Amino acid sequence: MEERPELQPLTEEPLSGTSKQPGLPPGTPVFTGEALEERVSITVMDYDATRCDVKHLARVEDAFPYRETSTVSWINVVGLHDVEPIQRLGEHFGLHSLVIEDIVHTTQRPKLELYDGYIYIVMKMLLYRHGEDTFDIEQVSMVLGENFVLTFQERQGDIFDPVRNRIKNSVGRIRKVGPDYLLYALMDSVVDNYFIVLEAKSDKVEDLDERLLEDPGPENLNIIRALKRRMLLVKRAVWPLRDVMAALLRDETPLVHEGTRVFLRDIYDHTVQAIDMVETLREMISGMMDLHLSSLSNRMNEIMKVLTIIAAIFIPLTFIAGIYGMNFEHMPELRFRYGYYGVLGVMAVAALAMLIYFRRKKWF
Amino acid sequence: MEERPELQPLTEEPLSGTSKQPGLPPGTPVFTGEALEERVSITVMDYDATRCDVKHLARVEDAFPYRETSTVSWINVVGLHDVEPIQRLGEHFGLHSLVIEDIVHTTQRPKLELYDGYIYIVMKMLLYRHGEDTFDIEQVSMVLGENFVLTFQERQGDIFDPVRNRIKNSVGRIRKVGPDYLLYALMDSVVDNYFIVLEAKSDKVEDLDERLLEDPGPENLNIIRALKRRMLLVKRAVWPLRDVMAALLRDETPLVHEGTRVFLRDIYDHTVQAIDMVETLREMISGMMDLHLSSLSNRMNEIMKVLTIIAAIFIPLTFIAGIYGMNFEHMPELRFRYGYYGVLGVMAVAALAMLIYFRRKKWF
Amino acid sequence: MEERPELQPLTEEPLSGTSKQPGLPPGTPVFTGEALEERVSITVMDYDATRCDVKHLARVEDAFPYRETSTVSWINVVGLHDVEPIQRLGEHFGLHSLVIEDIVHTTQRPKLELYDGYIYIVMKMLLYRHGEDTFDIEQVSMVLGENFVLTFQERQGDIFDPVRNRIKNSVGRIRKVGPDYLLYALMDSVVDNYFIVLEAKSDKVEDLDERLLEDPGPENLNIIRALKRRMLLVKRAVWPLRDVMAALLRDETPLVHEGTRVFLRDIYDHTVQAIDMVETLREMISGMMDLHLSSLSNRMNEIMKVLTIIAAIFIPLTFIAGIYGMNFEHMPELRFRYGYYGVLGVMAVAALAMLIYFRRKKWF
Amino acid sequence: MEERPELQPLTEEPLSGTSKQPGLPPGTPVFTGEALEERVSITVMDYDATRCDVKHLARVEDAFPYRETSTVSWINVVGLHDVEPIQRLGEHFGLHSLVIEDIVHTTQRPKLELYDGYIYIVMKMLLYRHGEDTFDIEQVSMVLGENFVLTFQERQGDIFDPVRNRIKNSVGRIRKVGPDYLLYALMDSVVDNYFIVLEAKSDKVEDLDERLLEDPGPENLNIIRALKRRMLLVKRAVWPLRDVMAALLRDETPLVHEGTRVFLRDIYDHTVQAIDMVETLREMISGMMDLHLSSLSNRMNEIMKVLTIIAAIFIPLTFIAGIYGMNFEHMPELRFRYGYYGVLGVMAVAALAMLIYFRRKKWF
Amino acid sequence: MEERPELQPLTEEPLSGTSKQPGLPPGTPVFTGEALEERVSITVMDYDATRCDVKHLARVEDAFPYRETSTVSWINVVGLHDVEPIQRLGEHFGLHSLVIEDIVHTTQRPKLELYDGYIYIVMKMLLYRHGEDTFDIEQVSMVLGENFVLTFQERQGDIFDPVRNRIKNSVGRIRKVGPDYLLYALMDSVVDNYFIVLEAKSDKVEDLDERLLEDPGPENLNIIRALKRRMLLVKRAVWPLRDVMAALLRDETPLVHEGTRVFLRDIYDHTVQAIDMVETLREMISGMMDLHLSSLSNRMNEIMKVLTIIAAIFIPLTFIAGIYGMNFEHMPELRFRYGYYGVLGVMAVAALAMLIYFRRKKWF
Repeated sequence: MEERPELQPLTEEPLSGTSKQPGLPPGTPVFTGEALEERVSITVMDYDATRCDVKHLARVEDAFPYRETSTVSWINVVGLHDVEPIQRLGEHFGLHSLVIEDIVHTTQRPKLELYDGYIYIVMKMLLYRHGEDTFDIEQVSMVLGENFVLTFQERQGDIFDPVRNRIKNSVGRIRKVGPDYLLYALMDSVVDNYFIVLEAKSDKVEDLDERLLEDPGPENLNIIRALKRRMLLVKRAVWPLRDVMAALLRDETPLVHEGTRVFLRDIYDHTVQAIDMVETLREMISGMMDLHLSSLSNRMNEIMKVLTIIAAIFIPLTFIAGIYGMNFEHMPELRFRYGYYGVLGVMAVAALAMLIYFRRKKWF
Repeated sequence: MEERPELQPLTEEPLSGTSKQPGLPPGTPVFTGEALEERVSITVMDYDATRCDVKHLARVEDAFPYRETSTVSWINVVGLHDVEPIQRLGEHFGLHSLVIEDIVHTTQRPKLELYDGYIYIVMKMLLYRHGEDTFDIEQVSMVLGENFVLTFQERQGDIFDPVRNRIKNSVGRIRKVGPDYLLYALMDSVVDNYFIVLEAKSDKVEDLDERLLEDPGPENLNIIRALKRRMLLVKRAVWPLRDVMAALLRDETPLVHEGTRVFLRDIYDHTVQAIDMVETLREMISGMMDLHLSSLSNRMNEIMKVLTIIAAIFIPLTFIAGIYGMNFEHMPELRFRYGYYGVLGVMAVAALAMLIYFRRKKWF
Repeated sequence: MEERPELQPLTEEPLSGTSKQPGLPPGTPVFTGEALEERVSITVMDYDATRCDVKHLARVEDAFPYRETSTVSWINVVGLHDVEPIQRLGEHFGLHSLVIEDIVHTTQRPKLELYDGYIYIVMKMLLYRHGEDTFDIEQVSMVLGENFVLTFQERQGDIFDPVRNRIKNSVGRIRKVGPDYLLYALMDSVVDNYFIVLEAKSDKVEDLDERLLEDPGPENLNIIRALKRRMLLVKRAVWPLRDVMAALLRDETPLVHEGTRVFLRDIYDHTVQAIDMVETLREMISGMMDLHLSSLSNRMNEIMKVLTIIAAIFIPLTFIAGIYGMNFEHMPELRFRYGYYGVLGVMAVAALAMLIYFRRKKWF
Repeated sequence: MEERPELQPLTEEPLSGTSKQPGLPPGTPVFTGEALEERVSITVMDYDATRCDVKHLARVEDAFPYRETSTVSWINVVGLHDVEPIQRLGEHFGLHSLVIEDIVHTTQRPKLELYDGYIYIVMKMLLYRHGEDTFDIEQVSMVLGENFVLTFQERQGDIFDPVRNRIKNSVGRIRKVGPDYLLYALMDSVVDNYFIVLEAKSDKVEDLDERLLEDPGPENLNIIRALKRRMLLVKRAVWPLRDVMAALLRDETPLVHEGTRVFLRDIYDHTVQAIDMVETLREMISGMMDLHLSSLSNRMNEIMKVLTIIAAIFIPLTFIAGIYGMNFEHMPELRFRYGYYGVLGVMAVAALAMLIYFRRKKWF
Repeated sequence: MEERPELQPLTEEPLSGTSKQPGLPPGTPVFTGEALEERVSITVMDYDATRCDVKHLARVEDAFPYRETSTVSWINVVGLHDVEPIQRLGEHFGLHSLVIEDIVHTTQRPKLELYDGYIYIVMKMLLYRHGEDTFDIEQVSMVLGENFVLTFQERQGDIFDPVRNRIKNSVGRIRKVGPDYLLYALMDSVVDNYFIVLEAKSDKVEDLDERLLEDPGPENLNIIRALKRRMLLVKRAVWPLRDVMAALLRDETPLVHEGTRVFLRDIYDHTVQAIDMVETLREMISGMMDLHLSSLSNRMNEIMKVLTIIAAIFIPLTFIAGIYGMNFEHMPELRFRYGYYGVLGVMAVAALAMLIYFRRKKWF
């Protein structure tokens, strides 16, 4: 149904929040990400229990009629770099100018905002890239209206495909219920993908954990550091979602029906579980730093033991040899018949004594 | 009464939460653990103050009539890998599809959910394996209905045996009161087992603590690390239970009678006590890491002292010997009658001076 | 009045909470400590403003009539290993079976429980053992009824003696007011003893602090570690008491009169103060670990400096001596008249240069 | 419109809070900063939907009439070292003496105070100085009255210029709405500048992160330390603002109209986002300290390996050479025809054995 | 007006809280500090808008009439070691026995207690001793009655002098308003002195920070440790005050008039600001420990580099010299005409190679 371009590497999400020109009037939409799609692409799924239309729209104006239909309309907008059509769409659907600004402003923190007639939700998608063992972060905005759901993504992805298929094939209750259930299904897809990323990171943590004990090299430091930073990004995507879900459950908006609440509570539970995993992983990674430092200390001890054992054995022996290398005229030992062998014997005894001493100290 | 298979090693609970295929419709039960039992086994205890029936059921349908009886029915299902009968059972007893999904999804966080007509509780069992000094983690789901309790375990265990015996022998009030008291008794058994695990870990921490001072080897690091991870698992099992119990005490559900509340408060107290122990143990283990690092530093100091003492004594002496090993034609000392003895004396004095210096510095 | 046996060493309180046989029916009292007294001893003080009776009771049944008297009756039970009489006493005074279980179960966390007609409080006594510079931890249970106070201790101690004397000699208001004031007086005695232990630990921390700077030996590590663990025990005894006191002040039970509340608030303040001290001490002890590690590093620096200075001076000199110890036939310097003295001079200059270099670097 | 002096370096904000002469009567305004402007400069923008006056006022009294106008008046006072005119202005506009004191007292913590008829807000401006890679901190006080906004800055800056331009050119809604929206616009400008500073710091953190791995020199320590301190300053500016915004949103003051609240909520969101970034950066910087310490340890390991390898190879060889440098009369090897070559061979073998040993241990 | 004795060094406040004989009846005042004044001195300021009397009282009974006057009476008691007159005074002014006990018990935590007819406040004074760069901690108790303020200090100080002068000279509103404003003025003086101490500590932290980088000696450890402990003391004095002020603002006691509340809120703000500074300083000091440890590691690296460079250059050279110092009869090189120079050349090349190697590794 949709052309799926090869996944280009997404730049790592910048830590900095907003590059908005300070002092711009509020509600001025300025796209802050990188243009990941060549042009804005708009898809509509319009369905009720009996039928389901899927359309690619050429112009944003083609989406306008769906505001009025009695069916559920899901309008998915991909590509946020071209601000103007999004602004037109948003205005037609009655979105506040600040909401339109936030949609194209891709450094939002996950949040929920209740407006008259619609709910605005920002989430962070974590997209695991198989084969490369990394993940991209992308902002997705969702607007739930009385009979429509708008979603805004930075670029094509396959996260929502299972939902699309369930709608098309009318799997489960999705075709029979309203747009609030669609919103749930979409949010659920996003949260499910968190676990894929977390599981991959979890595996990596396990690998590293074993590796730290077997091969305590300095390159582990780099891996720990990278893991730490990636988990910081995940944390920032997942943590605020708990408040979003709690607010959604608490608020008695008529847009969310009673029957959907139990499903939203399920997402809430999953979010708490994801946070739990994030914190557990972060604690484990942080413990690895200690482990690494301790390994380094151990290593140093090993090195120093080798040095000390060799020095402690040979330095005294060299001294003894030095004594009998002196050129004094009167050194009676030098003339002893077995002086040389005697000295060799003394040296052997001294070396043996040292070895026994270190053995007793369990140095080797 | 029940065949008890030899305890197979349970794989360590994965940190990752859900392997659900993202995008599956909600309420699709997918078993996520390992198949630990060959087939699902169902046992029913049906009792009131006067009689007590115990039955092994061949088919899940045999359990259906117990929904209607006026007696208390405890239906215990062991083995969650075969999703289908569990789904049939759940549907007959009116469980929400999300509940059925959670029952077979064995990576839940402990939680409580109130539904119309029943309460759903997920807990984590900690099963200490004597002789092997480790423990397994298993998910147990409990459903409290008006006249029944359903429990779902991953595999056969003996944790509930004492409760079974109390029912069979009508010990205490258990036969005289309702299913809420049975739920309490089952939860209490689970929590009691936490303390067995915590005591075992506590003993291990004590052992390690002594060992760290006596024998500060690098293998201790490995033990600390293993303890740390095990305690993380325990923490994740125990911490959320406090909220579960608090919610159970707070909610005014008619399913829990006033007389049972004081017992549930007792479990709450035990949970708080277990959390207290978990945190104390975690703090102690974390302190051990410092202790270990400090031991390593101490050890390094010891090694360096040995090296420095030996080097500081013999390197200067070797130098002196080196001087009189030079081949200059005009070195008057070489011809002194007692030059050799004089030099030996000087060396002895120098060595002694060094020894006194290090002694004063308390290096040995 | 009471025979006071010599204080036997109390075993350090185990970290583990309950050794209850898992699955026992609730309300089965099982003593979990060590039998510290040979037999249970029961003392009654029965007083009002005009008179005060003190009696040692031979049998637990002798205490039963005091439930009915209009005077204030303080029944103090010492020795909890013999569960049976305590159970009879508790049942006569109308205690819930879980309360009786908790009384003999000496690993409770401090807590408060309100029942119909009585309040149950568990505290931890800290008994400083003078001369041995350590302290014991003992559980004390208190039950406040309408006209009686029951106290349960593990063994004889002198903590309550001042209260006994105030009752006997009618010091202050104690004889004129009800059992709630007696409860206050007893709790106050327990809390006052916290400060004695905390002051002793505080002195020890001060000592250690000075010692760490003067003599940074590895044995300090052991002292820090012991202090840390002892403070963990104190923390576990003191922290939960704040919630106990807050709950006691908040609840509007008729058992506590308005006039007594201001005194209970005083205990609350003392508890907060004790917690404050505990946390300050813990922070100081934790800072000491850093101090210790830093001292070790300093020490290592010192050792390495000595080694480096000696090696840097003598190794080059030895090399020079080595050169002129070579046996080449054509080494013109060897025949110089003052070659030997020249070389000695060169060596002296090299050594001096090294010394100046290290001096400049402030190495000594 | 305004003369903009060259930006002089602002002294780093002192950590200490108030240098007020202790015991002065409250409400005594004492300027606590440095005199950054030669004289107090006052500008007025007086506008409504139809017109906009901009005036530089010579005397503070010229501002008095604007209290009465029905238009929106923004009176911006720059330079706080001359306390007297500010006091006169404040008194005319009905400000509490404590507010006037706080305005000139430039070490306030960000806060919000509600008074009858006006709201007083203190914020910290962060002014990024391009080219110098640092930022200044300046206090800005804002007073929102029924038809006026007073702002007090320490010195000329360009932060408010975009707002001025929007007013002059009537961009957006600013000219059509009341002073509460003006307050929003000004606060928004301040918060937008936080992100500029945070982005700059974020870049610096990224740079440092790479540098730490490539070139782990001791100078990094200094950079980490400087970053840490700067972030502490940012934290102190940003954190309290969240409470300020929450209080502003919560309080139902008639001075803030319903339509403006959604904009204030936007500032609240930005503040939370800024706090999020501050904490993320702080966590990253703190992780860098660990990284740096670990690098130092790694470095030490490298150094010690070099030393140990060289010492372990040559010290034994020197000993062998020393043996055959002894002057015993009876040393048969010395006379062997190939003794010399034999010894050289033994030495080569010994050195090789050592090299293989170290290679196996992966030391090089 | 008052004789001001030379400031004697106050002993550092003990960490331990109460040395009360455990078991004493409550309300038994026992002085717990050191007797800092020879005798208790009592001063009264009795004023209203028109007149102001200042009197030194010889006996405590002379203060009794001031309870009845319609003017504002400030009775300042200095010296708490003589418990008896304080008890008489307290009883006459209707103070609860626990309050009197707390007044002389100088190890209180700052707190607020509301009684019928009066408010009792305990604060900690921080008195900076100029020239000695340290500060004393002293307890000050304040009692606010309907028409009087009682203050109890351990010894003469000049903290309240500015308030005295404002009363005498009728500066500001102080003479026109009630005792609640006097209480505010006194508390404000105490809090203002916190900032003096904090500024001094802040300067010290800045000094130390620079010093740590320039001269990373072990004595810095001692300074850090002392700063840490002093800040712990400050923290304990300042932190609880926030709760005191919050309670004072929250409680609707008629003793505090509406007009005074805004001033109390000002103290609240200052307290929050002081806490902010305390925490910032504590964080900086804690960061210094890391800095110090890192400096030590750096230092060690430097030392090891020197050792390794010298050892790596000269040990191989000494070995070469050792070879040609062997006494084999058949060593052809020894007879080469330019053998000696050849060997010297080889040595020079080897040394140079080493130097280049270390240079490349940037070791010097």
